[in-house]
Amino acid sequence: MRTPALFTCLFIFSGLLCGCRERCEPRPCAQVRESGPAQLPPGFIEPCRPELLSVQQSGEGMWPWQDLSRLDEASLRSRGLELPLSDFWTPGQGGLAQAVVGLRGCTGAFISEHGLLITNHHCALGAIQKISRADQNLLESGFVARGRSAELPAPGVTVLVFRSQRDVTLEMSRGLPADAPDLDTAVFLRSREKELIAECEKTPSMRCSLSRENDGLRFLLNESTELTDVRLVYAPPESLGSFGGEIDNWRWPRHALDFTLLRAYVAPDQKPAAHAETNVPFSPPHHLEVSTSGPAVGDFIMVAGTPYRTSRYRTALEIRRLHEWFYPRREALMSRWLAILERAGELYPEARIPNATMLRRLANGLTNARGQIEGIAKNRVIARRLSEEETLRTWIRSTRFPVSEKALEELNRHLEEVPFQDLDFLLSLMETGTSAYAAAYLLVKWAHERSLPDAKRTPGWQERDRAALLSRLSTGDLSYHAASDRMVLSMFLDELDALDPDQRPAHHRPAVTDEDRRRREEWLDTLFRTTTVMDPTARQALFAATPEALAQSPDPMIQFALAWFPAMQDMESRRLVDEGALMRLRRPWMQAIMAFRGRSFYPDANASPRVSFATVTGYSPEDGTWHGPFTTLRGMLAKHRGRAPFELPAAFIEAAQQEHHGPWMDPHLEDVPINFLSNADTTGGNSGSPVLDGRGRLLGLNFDRVYENIAGDFGYNPLRSRNIMVDVRAILWTLDRVAQAHDILQEIGVQAKPQAVTNTATRGP
Amino acid sequence: MRTPALFTCLFIFSGLLCGCRERCEPRPCAQVRESGPAQLPPGFIEPCRPELLSVQQSGEGMWPWQDLSRLDEASLRSRGLELPLSDFWTPGQGGLAQAVVGLRGCTGAFISEHGLLITNHHCALGAIQKISRADQNLLESGFVARGRSAELPAPGVTVLVFRSQRDVTLEMSRGLPADAPDLDTAVFLRSREKELIAECEKTPSMRCSLSRENDGLRFLLNESTELTDVRLVYAPPESLGSFGGEIDNWRWPRHALDFTLLRAYVAPDQKPAAHAETNVPFSPPHHLEVSTSGPAVGDFIMVAGTPYRTSRYRTALEIRRLHEWFYPRREALMSRWLAILERAGELYPEARIPNATMLRRLANGLTNARGQIEGIAKNRVIARRLSEEETLRTWIRSTRFPVSEKALEELNRHLEEVPFQDLDFLLSLMETGTSAYAAAYLLVKWAHERSLPDAKRTPGWQERDRAALLSRLSTGDLSYHAASDRMVLSMFLDELDALDPDQRPAHHRPAVTDEDRRRREEWLDTLFRTTTVMDPTARQALFAATPEALAQSPDPMIQFALAWFPAMQDMESRRLVDEGALMRLRRPWMQAIMAFRGRSFYPDANASPRVSFATVTGYSPEDGTWHGPFTTLRGMLAKHRGRAPFELPAAFIEAAQQEHHGPWMDPHLEDVPINFLSNADTTGGNSGSPVLDGRGRLLGLNFDRVYENIAGDFGYNPLRSRNIMVDVRAILWTLDRVAQAHDILQEIGVQAKPQAVTNTATRGP
Repeated sequence: MRTPALFTCLFIFSGLLCGCRERCEPRPCAQVRESGPAQLPPGFIEPCRPELLSVQQSGEGMWPWQDLSRLDEASLRSRGLELPLSDFWTPGQGGLAQAVVGLRGCTGAFISEHGLLITNHHCALGAIQKISRADQNLLESGFVARGRSAELPAPGVTVLVFRSQRDVTLEMSRGLPADAPDLDTAVFLRSREKELIAECEKTPSMRCSLSRENDGLRFLLNESTELTDVRLVYAPPESLGSFGGEIDNWRWPRHALDFTLLRAYVAPDQKPAAHAETNVPFSPPHHLEVSTSGPAVGDFIMVAGTPYRTSRYRTALEIRRLHEWFYPRREALMSRWLAILERAGELYPEARIPNATMLRRLANGLTNARGQIEGIAKNRVIARRLSEEETLRTWIRSTRFPVSEKALEELNRHLEEVPFQDLDFLLSLMETGTSAYAAAYLLVKWAHERSLPDAKRTPGWQERDRAALLSRLSTGDLSYHAASDRMVLSMFLDELDALDPDQRPAHHRPAVTDEDRRRREEWLDTLFRTTTVMDPTARQALFAATPEALAQSPDPMIQFALAWFPAMQDMESRRLVDEGALMRLRRPWMQAIMAFRGRSFYPDANASPRVSFATVTGYSPEDGTWHGPFTTLRGMLAKHRGRAPFELPAAFIEAAQQEHHGPWMDPHLEDVPINFLSNADTTGGNSGSPVLDGRGRLLGLNFDRVYENIAGDFGYNPLRSRNIMVDVRAILWTLDRVAQAHDILQEIGVQAKPQAVTNTATRGP
Repeated sequence: MRTPALFTCLFIFSGLLCGCRERCEPRPCAQVRESGPAQLPPGFIEPCRPELLSVQQSGEGMWPWQDLSRLDEASLRSRGLELPLSDFWTPGQGGLAQAVVGLRGCTGAFISEHGLLITNHHCALGAIQKISRADQNLLESGFVARGRSAELPAPGVTVLVFRSQRDVTLEMSRGLPADAPDLDTAVFLRSREKELIAECEKTPSMRCSLSRENDGLRFLLNESTELTDVRLVYAPPESLGSFGGEIDNWRWPRHALDFTLLRAYVAPDQKPAAHAETNVPFSPPHHLEVSTSGPAVGDFIMVAGTPYRTSRYRTALEIRRLHEWFYPRREALMSRWLAILERAGELYPEARIPNATMLRRLANGLTNARGQIEGIAKNRVIARRLSEEETLRTWIRSTRFPVSEKALEELNRHLEEVPFQDLDFLLSLMETGTSAYAAAYLLVKWAHERSLPDAKRTPGWQERDRAALLSRLSTGDLSYHAASDRMVLSMFLDELDALDPDQRPAHHRPAVTDEDRRRREEWLDTLFRTTTVMDPTARQALFAATPEALAQSPDPMIQFALAWFPAMQDMESRRLVDEGALMRLRRPWMQAIMAFRGRSFYPDANASPRVSFATVTGYSPEDGTWHGPFTTLRGMLAKHRGRAPFELPAAFIEAAQQEHHGPWMDPHLEDVPINFLSNADTTGGNSGSPVLDGRGRLLGLNFDRVYENIAGDFGYNPLRSRNIMVDVRAILWTLDRVAQAHDILQEIGVQAKPQAVTNTATRGP
């Protein structure tokens, strides 16, 4: 019954270099023909060795737009790129890349000439929450603006329209003495950074940021226009936007309609302006055409966005410490914290809404920590890094590269000495994880920074950051529940009690006896009963107070923050010294890595705009199983359980059960595709990244990675590095069939062919 | 970048009917070409819609050997059958099917002319446990007999060599009045069954059994020779035999080396005989040739064995009751029971070994119950059965089939009345789930049955069953731990307390007050302190005692069993009446089903020898995922965690890490295949079933089903009905490279090409 498959193989693998396993080098098809799936059974297509087949043209690399000219354009064209790379970005001129915008930790893209923007639902969640009212919960119902006048302001959302990316390495280092002490280096660079940004931001509405690349071997200045009048156009109900909730988070198979539409507004003269009735839609320099045919298995795609941080060039020793200390510590603390907030939810039902966001962040962080621990082990990241280090050492010896092999030893020696790591771990989490203490600390720190000249302040605490700090304070109010916050602060005090005495700041008295504990409880009661830091009116005065005035404040939370302030400042100093030292020690080793890798080298992600070139493909999460690259509407319906997080709205179910999905149906899947996978190189910050085809058309939106790829931050793995995207056809189907948002479809140039379907779901105000 | 795939499709689907989705009819390839995976990307083979591709030539049907002549042999030949079906079985003459043997609840197969047998490790577990000693734990170490004299008796294992299968329908029903009351019918048939079996067993060493098919529309008499001198030749350590333990049980991907080798011995004249030094290896009428090339994706295979029970023709109402009452009830009770035994293990570390088997059974039963509940829901078994019933009714009307449509209504009306179901549920579990009470009940029942003429006794309690009953008693000793047993009996008393008063037998006094409970605890203490039923010597006398003598026994456990005896007898009477009624009511409906299905009809499994024709294929457990049909040695190593149940012996790891696995390596997988999947129709009792290729050669051993197929007992699902098998190459590799059992390989005619590997692992005494 077997049939010779030589011909099939010839056909399928024709003329291409095929992938290979982790332990081998890429090899030509001829060899794959010999040892690959040579016997395909009749009526059957199945990968014998999915891991062989899953190694497509690698998606490794997050390329700064600045570096497009370094790439092998011919090779990209052979993979499916159709536009010239210069159309995406030409330094000094811009290009299609300007359709991709930054959204404070997320990415988005313009999809119409009238400032219509698309991003992830989870990126707009905070804004949607803020404009929801008790009688009109937009998270629950979703939202469709029927006409522009119905669009709602999306508070807190700002859009950064990318203008340029400029190499400022020389300007940064000019005048820095070669032998400056580490602290001086760090201070010098921070100061220069502030100067450059201040200079850049002299243009009104310009927001600038500096990307430090390759441990200070290159500095890029990113210039963007900031638009602050952003409005909500369409949001699916949360039950669709995060269908599967925490259960499906970081997982495949996935069925989330994680997208939202916004619109950026400007003054009638197209200048950025605060929200005003008279504002008009922004005309972006570029916007993306929307594909209606969507992606297919094996398609070439591009994922553009602002990836936040990767650690591809960290040493084995550093990753080992993360694996053995940091992630386990984080997992333990977050488990405890999560349990406390769950308990708070049982004790105080009213705490559930304010605590929801933090619970979600903790669950997400916990899964991430576990995924990192598992992934670093499973992908043998440390062993592989050690072997890469060995290869590099050998290469250094053989080429006489002008960097001492000793560079790594020196760097590792420094990395082994980490003073106060347990203390710093707790302090930084306590600052961001509590509400009242965080507010008090912000007020104290802000008063302190304001006593300094603007140019001398800590980055993030300058006058330019005033609005962001105020916004941070008011956002904190939404998630404040006093009794829960008290439980969390109590947990941090417990954790600080358990510190090694060498690390414990002198002013902190651990509760040892029952009497100590009783007193601490009493003190906590008073603290939360009397503090005014969570009262917006009272806080206004505190935000304007001098350090001296704060020192006189009767508010015990302010006094508590003042007590911890020196420890926090010490932590910052330690970081500054370390920053200088690491830059000095890492540079030679990084130079060797860059020279060794040559053209295939790309800098670690650092929140600057990038693009990844990839292929739509599945992967094998383990022996005997294969995750295919598409999920379907059928599969989404099958997951419906009638209760969160697997609860589909009735209108959605009705639309999904129609026989004909028209142009949104994939002919091969015979269904509407929902999510899909590729081997694109993404990380946090890529949420909402547009996925483009070879002609730059929108194919979907990136929104997550698979569990097996959580540890991908430490090293791209062609077998397991997969990102998860919403298929554009799922987006269009939803707008067409569920939201009946035909105006929007028309605006983005999509011909919605109305079908004779029941007129369901006209949500919105 | 896309390439037209028409040619591939033509090539792959050439000339075959392809599968289809659940909701459609099979359709020719031409259509699949149009709507199937028409765009294969370069360098990539992947099913766009795995569920379309997974519908191979269906594996549905467990065919009695008796019925082979009814099958469409030409169609089977086109699928890959190479031998004439008559070579497997010709009524009156036998055939290759005789190489397949029964092993009390399992199946096995002869693989040499010297009586060498292969079956699952889990089928020989009890025997291996019995011959283990504290200083030589064969479960832990595994066992290799170096030479025949080193083979160890395998206590309790008997081999049934299949001789014939004869239609005795006429003999069974001759003389039964057409209008006999239900009880009379049941008693008449039981009595006739005993006569036929007694007649058949007049030949020494002949063991006969009656298969009731299609609710009494056909009776087959199975005649087998029983061999009782069975010895252990090779067993892997349990860490390999049940690698993955309960975690992997019922699951894919799977990596268990679940096989064991035994040898059947007979007297020098080849007559069956009890164990004796002078015995010689049995020369089986047929034995299987062992394949060395193993199976490949899409291969035609046959799975032969003794499937225990399926319920393919039960009505929707009956399945609904199982789904809504029986499985949830079972799940709840087993969860409680499991928790009790786990608690016992914490309290009494010495209880862990005796309780191990029951813990395993409970965990297995619990997974099964959950799988049934999930599977019946997910496969929409009830809705589909209802629709089948509707189709059949329509057909009956249109064809004027001489069976009233009313048959189903009458049957359903009867099925709705189930008296005492809660009581019977508890009583039957209490009888098999406890040790001391089970022993006492067996003694009481045995005494009672012996007071009747042999021909009048309950089946299973005749003189022919004496040895089996004694063996049941002594097997119970091995798993007896008094304190645990007391906890379990106490749980059953609690459960009986909670019965509806209508069902509760009059003699049972529920413990209501604290005082009642205190008294019951005291009574239980005395019960377990003073009973002698678990003392082999004392029990010998009790086994020979008359009912009158037992009535005088001071043993409180005997008295307790005597008190429950009438309730147990009532339960048996209820069953007997129900048996007669169901036979009467089901027959007309079953006749309609049979007429409607015609040639594709096969009787429900009933422990008689059968064969299923199937295809090696994976399946899609859910949207976006695909379970491929092979796992590998590489994948098994990746699962190794260094602790049970994922703990590989060092010698195994060493052998696995060798670069060259010689002839046991699959050229496509580039590795030794461990387990594989097919769409064969199997159920409990198929454990150890040999898997044959089209020429009748051994390709592997069946040992489990996938989780999605647990509910397959109620209906074969071409998309999810998958069984799990050990690949013969995993078996041969283990014997060759780990066990160094080259004598065995030689005996089964396999050329082991010795490689220059380290001489590892020479386990055994």
